[in-house]
Amino acid sequence: MHEPEVLVCFRPSGREAYVLPGTRLVEAAAEAGLALELPCGGEGRCGRCRVIVAAGAAEPTAAEHHWLSAEELDAGWRLACQSAVHGPTTVEIPPGVLAAAEHKILVHTQGAAGPSDDPPVRKQYVELPPPVRGDDLPDVLRLERAANCGPLEIDLSLLRELPGRLRELGFRGTAVLADRRLLDFEPGNTAAEAFAVAVDIGTTTVVATLLDLNTGGERAVEARLNPQTRFGDDVLTRILRVRESPDGLEQLHAAITTAVDEMIGQLCQQAGAAREQIYEVTFAGNTTMQQLLCRIDPSSLGEVPFAPATAHGLAFLAAELGLHIHPRGAAYVMPVIGGFVGGDTVAGMLATGMADGDGPALLLDIGTNGEIVLLADGKLSAASTAAGPAFEGARISCGMRGSTGAIEKVVVDGHLRTNVIGNVPPAGLCGSGLIDVAAELLRHRILTPQGRLQSPEQLPADVLPDLAQRIVLYEKQVSFVLASESETGGRPIVLTQRDLRELQLATGAIRAGVVILLQRAGLEPKDLKRVMMGGGFGNFIRRSNAQRIGLLPSQIEHRRIRYMGNTSLAGARLAALSLRARRMAEELARRTEHVDLSTDVNFQRAFAESMIFPEA
Amino acid sequence: MHEPEVLVCFRPSGREAYVLPGTRLVEAAAEAGLALELPCGGEGRCGRCRVIVAAGAAEPTAAEHHWLSAEELDAGWRLACQSAVHGPTTVEIPPGVLAAAEHKILVHTQGAAGPSDDPPVRKQYVELPPPVRGDDLPDVLRLERAANCGPLEIDLSLLRELPGRLRELGFRGTAVLADRRLLDFEPGNTAAEAFAVAVDIGTTTVVATLLDLNTGGERAVEARLNPQTRFGDDVLTRILRVRESPDGLEQLHAAITTAVDEMIGQLCQQAGAAREQIYEVTFAGNTTMQQLLCRIDPSSLGEVPFAPATAHGLAFLAAELGLHIHPRGAAYVMPVIGGFVGGDTVAGMLATGMADGDGPALLLDIGTNGEIVLLADGKLSAASTAAGPAFEGARISCGMRGSTGAIEKVVVDGHLRTNVIGNVPPAGLCGSGLIDVAAELLRHRILTPQGRLQSPEQLPADVLPDLAQRIVLYEKQVSFVLASESETGGRPIVLTQRDLRELQLATGAIRAGVVILLQRAGLEPKDLKRVMMGGGFGNFIRRSNAQRIGLLPSQIEHRRIRYMGNTSLAGARLAALSLRARRMAEELARRTEHVDLSTDVNFQRAFAESMIFPEA
Repeated sequence: MHEPEVLVCFRPSGREAYVLPGTRLVEAAAEAGLALELPCGGEGRCGRCRVIVAAGAAEPTAAEHHWLSAEELDAGWRLACQSAVHGPTTVEIPPGVLAAAEHKILVHTQGAAGPSDDPPVRKQYVELPPPVRGDDLPDVLRLERAANCGPLEIDLSLLRELPGRLRELGFRGTAVLADRRLLDFEPGNTAAEAFAVAVDIGTTTVVATLLDLNTGGERAVEARLNPQTRFGDDVLTRILRVRESPDGLEQLHAAITTAVDEMIGQLCQQAGAAREQIYEVTFAGNTTMQQLLCRIDPSSLGEVPFAPATAHGLAFLAAELGLHIHPRGAAYVMPVIGGFVGGDTVAGMLATGMADGDGPALLLDIGTNGEIVLLADGKLSAASTAAGPAFEGARISCGMRGSTGAIEKVVVDGHLRTNVIGNVPPAGLCGSGLIDVAAELLRHRILTPQGRLQSPEQLPADVLPDLAQRIVLYEKQVSFVLASESETGGRPIVLTQRDLRELQLATGAIRAGVVILLQRAGLEPKDLKRVMMGGGFGNFIRRSNAQRIGLLPSQIEHRRIRYMGNTSLAGARLAALSLRARRMAEELARRTEHVDLSTDVNFQRAFAESMIFPEA
Repeated sequence: MHEPEVLVCFRPSGREAYVLPGTRLVEAAAEAGLALELPCGGEGRCGRCRVIVAAGAAEPTAAEHHWLSAEELDAGWRLACQSAVHGPTTVEIPPGVLAAAEHKILVHTQGAAGPSDDPPVRKQYVELPPPVRGDDLPDVLRLERAANCGPLEIDLSLLRELPGRLRELGFRGTAVLADRRLLDFEPGNTAAEAFAVAVDIGTTTVVATLLDLNTGGERAVEARLNPQTRFGDDVLTRILRVRESPDGLEQLHAAITTAVDEMIGQLCQQAGAAREQIYEVTFAGNTTMQQLLCRIDPSSLGEVPFAPATAHGLAFLAAELGLHIHPRGAAYVMPVIGGFVGGDTVAGMLATGMADGDGPALLLDIGTNGEIVLLADGKLSAASTAAGPAFEGARISCGMRGSTGAIEKVVVDGHLRTNVIGNVPPAGLCGSGLIDVAAELLRHRILTPQGRLQSPEQLPADVLPDLAQRIVLYEKQVSFVLASESETGGRPIVLTQRDLRELQLATGAIRAGVVILLQRAGLEPKDLKRVMMGGGFGNFIRRSNAQRIGLLPSQIEHRRIRYMGNTSLAGARLAALSLRARRMAEELARRTEHVDLSTDVNFQRAFAESMIFPEA
């Protein structure tokens, strides 16, 4: 049954989310990209997540009666972890309730949050006193004095134009400053128009966002399939393509750079911005994606010991990638940790602030590969597992990424209920929906721990009729129907036995990686103080379901787990807005030990064990 | 009479000079580019300039008998300021006798002097452990570890080639490092082949020298007329050309860059070096020459208040000037002080170390313009005078620059004796020869203080017959014959009345500038502790003659004056060999006040007064 979701608006950010009735406010907030401070893990035991429900408040729960006075309840105060959504709702989030670690991300994704204090590019309108007899200050020094800045570095190309331009413009205009470099001197006051683009280059999905350099706010977002997937859907296939085809490197490079350039055009159109007013493009991706982006041969990433060309963050002219932004605009590519722990992971470490908080802590970035970072005793170690693109909707028969039409949430509550992104008929299943449905099928014993989907005749006697009728033989495979032809208006959305095998491989690989990293540090899952999950699932993953399918060991305390969204994109955003963030990224990358799981004697065994879904 | 000069060899540097018999050793040393420490000003009153004349020692003078023991005299010890050359001579200069200030220049012009400790480019042969299982260090980090250096910056173009090249070369080769940037990774051990070029771009003359970055030594020198002279022989004519002709800027830019590129080719041929092993080209010139070199429109230098585009030192790819050196090799252009006190003057300040020593001190850089820098009370001020190119041989009917065939020295000793560069028949008169002959003509009252060359009938009765017979009417002007047709094997070499007017203008402008700068600081000529003269005269200027013609006020104590050679080139050399020198140059340029003589109410009067040659 496809149930229409309801709108929840959050103030002061103005962010919105459509959610299923019954969704708790904390989940709705997460869907809107707002992570709340939950000291007790969202179990109503601390009373800290106080918000004001300005419209659409639900009846108070017992926990809310405990933590809030009658006056407060009357005024609309509720606990975000307790109060559920029943209809259109408006929620006021007081300062201090936004989670501190997430604040770093959110600062730069909300218009209200204010600008970065050390942006890579800033604009300043200046009026220079024109040179007159007795004042022969050189043009550049005159500009430095007006802008009240130190000595400027200027490309020869601009320096050649500057004297003429200053005189044409009557010594008035907008200086575009990139740290100590003068990027341009523009006519009039253009200080309000300064943009950057942050790009997350996933193996499967590319997401780009246009940022306002003045406010740090997000002005537009674009996402599309990585066009390199037509050359192979995983990293190794693409490396092989480069090694075996003389044009391979150029083709893969051109595919991604052309796509990014098109996306920049779409972002500009969405926001009504000019390409020439974009001064920075930052990129986060795995090591191979980053090398292909830069047209650096990734062949050595396809053979032992999988050594990358470099591990430093790279800065160069965006024009060198054929990107059409400001002609002197720069590209920045995240530092990497190793051949298979790339800039996306570093971006995640940066965005979650994982190295700064309590340990032991775990960061799990789930894309086509699953990268795992462990903080233990102040030491960082990282590993990568070839999870495959199941969580991004690839290799899943009805899979899709988390965009409009994706079934992003599945709940069984007497009968099956689904939530579709964007209030349209369902078109496919994204990562978070996949996790949900697998967890529900395990709970209802329709899926065995070994990963077998029961045929109609093998189903337990007490199975819910709504679920039983959804088990069908579809294209010769036992399959589970999520949405019928009448619901989709086209082909049905089904989950097949083969899809579940893909999921099993993906979760097994990730969990085995987690287990091995913990073992190496002499830790057990229960020791973890914080577990941060990132990835482009498109939506909130329910922790209980992630643990039910074994993506995370069940021994990890439920309240320690937090979903952080697309941390790779969030880190790229930080790097687009702050030079300090870039230095921190470099530092984090250099401090982190790269663990090669393939050389760990225990990994194969852990992987085999992790392939089995946990027992109830 | 053209008298053949004799060879003087200096050890341990191996430098040589051809000089007229009777030349003192200190002058011979200066002609060989070696400045000696002369605390008493070279007057035999301190006994410090002790050298060993290993072959060709002259009879000791009274001063030498005073300062040296009989044993020392027997062993060949002499005072360089006293002992004269009579025939081929070999001189050993002990450590400590080379002048300290000059040492800075000389360090970098002698092979024996040793390398700079902070060269802009250094090469290092490295062998990297190849990546193997368990050692997946990224290529760039692997290189950093082998080179034992910090994080390297690498252009995308090189980074794209590096992984393949490292593997082709078996992880062995020579890293070319420019500060924190990797310029190249070359096959084999090429550490011994690392060159830079330093260029002095004068309005009239261009001099370029090839430097060995490992030793600091000079490997080759080339000089030629600045090809821009065909568009006008002074700075203002060329600025006018740019303002009035649409192609003017491009023509002037192409003329100089083409010439420099050709000179680089000649330097390479001379030294047997490859263009690709030149990693740096540094330039010093006046502000207009530097802007034309960089193709920065100098129009604003042609109108009040003559403001330059920038005053900072500039660093960019040499390829941006069309220079063919290493493809990632850099160009560096000296910082300037103002519109008419340029990089050549800053280079001179750097090379002479004028700001570090005792004050009040004066630096005089005589080229087509005369630039003057005064150090007084720790403050630096600088001005420029439009001296004209007389001292570089231009606008003088038989003028030429100080190269092979130039009459560089004129002495009247009963009869006229001349010294010609390179032991060939005389071809013209260079700046130092011009000063000599004018001084001698004044001394013998053949030239009046007002600048009139006496006709044969006006000559004093006691004039030397050899001089009297040289006064002729040549092309309708009273002229003085320096070399007859039989001596030159072609046209005679004459000095005309018009030539002497040019000289009068040039010396007047410079002396007036000196007078005004001193006045502004409340000083008189006699207060000066050090006067350093630089310029591309081609040779040693005799101080007495410089004062006789009024180039310097006669009140300056003779022993305070020192000729330092081409200080612009010497500064460009320092910048080619040392990053610290570049920082110092920037600092010197910024701390120097730019004085505009044209706005000084006293200048015109001082100029008019200075036009009169001093009375005897």
